[in-house]
Amino acid sequence: MNKQLIADLNLIREKAPLVHNITNYVVMNNTANALLAIGASPVMAHAVEEVNDMITIASVLVINMGTLSEKWVEAMLLAGKAAHKKGIPVVFDPVGAGATPYRNQVAASIVNICKPSVIRGNASEIMSLAKENTSTKGVDSTASSNEALDAAKRLAQQTGAIIVISGEEDFITDGQTVCSVKNGSALMPKVTGMGCTATAIVGAFAAVNSNYLKAATHAMAVMGVAGEIAAKKADGPGTMQLHFLDALYNLTCETLSEQAKIS
Amino acid sequence: MNKQLIADLNLIREKAPLVHNITNYVVMNNTANALLAIGASPVMAHAVEEVNDMITIASVLVINMGTLSEKWVEAMLLAGKAAHKKGIPVVFDPVGAGATPYRNQVAASIVNICKPSVIRGNASEIMSLAKENTSTKGVDSTASSNEALDAAKRLAQQTGAIIVISGEEDFITDGQTVCSVKNGSALMPKVTGMGCTATAIVGAFAAVNSNYLKAATHAMAVMGVAGEIAAKKADGPGTMQLHFLDALYNLTCETLSEQAKIS
Amino acid sequence: MNKQLIADLNLIREKAPLVHNITNYVVMNNTANALLAIGASPVMAHAVEEVNDMITIASVLVINMGTLSEKWVEAMLLAGKAAHKKGIPVVFDPVGAGATPYRNQVAASIVNICKPSVIRGNASEIMSLAKENTSTKGVDSTASSNEALDAAKRLAQQTGAIIVISGEEDFITDGQTVCSVKNGSALMPKVTGMGCTATAIVGAFAAVNSNYLKAATHAMAVMGVAGEIAAKKADGPGTMQLHFLDALYNLTCETLSEQAKIS
Repeated sequence: MNKQLIADLNLIREKAPLVHNITNYVVMNNTANALLAIGASPVMAHAVEEVNDMITIASVLVINMGTLSEKWVEAMLLAGKAAHKKGIPVVFDPVGAGATPYRNQVAASIVNICKPSVIRGNASEIMSLAKENTSTKGVDSTASSNEALDAAKRLAQQTGAIIVISGEEDFITDGQTVCSVKNGSALMPKVTGMGCTATAIVGAFAAVNSNYLKAATHAMAVMGVAGEIAAKKADGPGTMQLHFLDALYNLTCETLSEQAKIS
Repeated sequence: MNKQLIADLNLIREKAPLVHNITNYVVMNNTANALLAIGASPVMAHAVEEVNDMITIASVLVINMGTLSEKWVEAMLLAGKAAHKKGIPVVFDPVGAGATPYRNQVAASIVNICKPSVIRGNASEIMSLAKENTSTKGVDSTASSNEALDAAKRLAQQTGAIIVISGEEDFITDGQTVCSVKNGSALMPKVTGMGCTATAIVGAFAAVNSNYLKAATHAMAVMGVAGEIAAKKADGPGTMQLHFLDALYNLTCETLSEQAKIS
Repeated sequence: MNKQLIADLNLIREKAPLVHNITNYVVMNNTANALLAIGASPVMAHAVEEVNDMITIASVLVINMGTLSEKWVEAMLLAGKAAHKKGIPVVFDPVGAGATPYRNQVAASIVNICKPSVIRGNASEIMSLAKENTSTKGVDSTASSNEALDAAKRLAQQTGAIIVISGEEDFITDGQTVCSVKNGSALMPKVTGMGCTATAIVGAFAAVNSNYLKAATHAMAVMGVAGEIAAKKADGPGTMQLHFLDALYNLTCETLSEQAKIS
């Protein structure tokens, strides 16, 4: 599988696909920087007046509901419909699903109307989307990724989306096959928006590989390997952020191939 | 006092209280990262549709008026009322108070309606809130923290809130007692949003210690000590930011106890 | 020319002019930090209720249309009119001009109504504003700065604004004279919002030097020299960001004078 991973990374660097993000205020800067570092071209646009036009030049749409409000939801739904019509993938990050009824309702609308190709969340968010009884605590997960695996399979079958559960071990499933990635570092969840970055990187891979199960798996491996490299240099979550961007930018095919633990 | 300071820090790390922030666009990322680094769990949510529900799971509400607009103010007031009703503390940062009539009016509404437990600002902001004649310049202070001390005492008596004035020396008062913290570094005001971070950290301490005079004093000491550690490693305000987050994350009880200058 | 450059930098550090920014969500933090690092005093305010009042205390207005929406555009136009009336410069960054009809229409309104003193963009954006046929790709340029030089001259003549084209070589023109700056590093376009930072720094220089051709040229030289210093220390685009802020903060007159390549 690592050969295809390398091929995908090279394609991103060569094509620099335009990734249209409608994402949250907290992570916009990190997301844009991570996409640039991996070789993609990010754009952030959320006006209802322009999202349809932006989709016409984009290769993928990433929707992230971290900081919601009415107008933004309207733009997400519009853009998602346009993306679906154009036939480009929609990648969805249901940040904080389960924390409030409003978030649950918005997440359900996005799933139903935008028909995402990939949904990435932490265990709590995926369990909440799959309507499992689970307690959540804001945007941090209260469950481990294995606990959410059955919910993820069910959600994949219901929605037709590839489901990605981030955690110590990442799981990626289409409802039948389950891939896993055992990379990463304990410092990653200490940096805000690392999950949101993962979703955006999944977007970049989905823009160049229409096998979304593989695309998402490759993206999570790149995240994890870059995280491992960064953690070795970091003294804490502050320096971690920058070493992570440097690692994404400097990632060689050799390192990636050697270190990626995909199964 | 340093024993209680350590006890509070340990409680934050153990309980990871959910800190609900309605804050400004400039600092959201820093605020979230600082709260994660100290051991709290941040959430940012500003939709009128969900702030009430978010309050039901939060341990403290932090309101920061750095980048205002109508809908956000509506959400701040709603959330503040819900927090007050639930009995969790509201911590308020009147960023730029005095700069425009709109800011003054919003600040007054938040004080009256949300009844904050703690208000933290720079000298200009506190003097403006206390209706002292003072010239302000955007969001940076034009006065020193001692000059604002009388205004702070008066404001504490009027509002019932603990007032924190950040500056070279920080003052924390309930209108009678005045605590002071002599920590920090001259590089701190060169990093945007360091004051906003202080307010969020006050929020984390207020979530675990209902003696808000002490909670706020402890928070300011942690800010100052982490700032000193970071400044030693920093080459300027850019690297300062990250070393600061690393310092918050790595702060040991020993270092904190030795270096905190509270009186 | 380097003597005047030094004089401008010293003036910024001495006067700390208040730079009022109405800018995009992605770069607000970087923009504020870069302005602080160079010695200016940044404020971000976008509420229609307060932009007029903020202009009364500001020395310059910077408008950046990176993440647009209706209310923000309304505030930009209001603030621009107030700035024009007060006689302080307006500096405009037409981020993503050409990407969507909505962006083109907003950019045209800002140019017509706010009458900017300086417009800074990448080659694609400037060509799009000058109504040259050009393909754009989101917010990244698809042309080199020389290709846009004729368009820039025409745009300067049409609008009366100084036009700055950022690129490997920067060009600054009033429609007749063309200045150029040959500083910078290939890592700069790999950091999101470096162009937006350049626009804000142009704002700081325009606040202290009413010869906007020179002010803009000086700003671009400072950006480029700081970029070169930072790139030597950086391992990638992550660490680049912080070393850049440190370099702005620590920039000495000697280094600037020696390294600036203005012609």
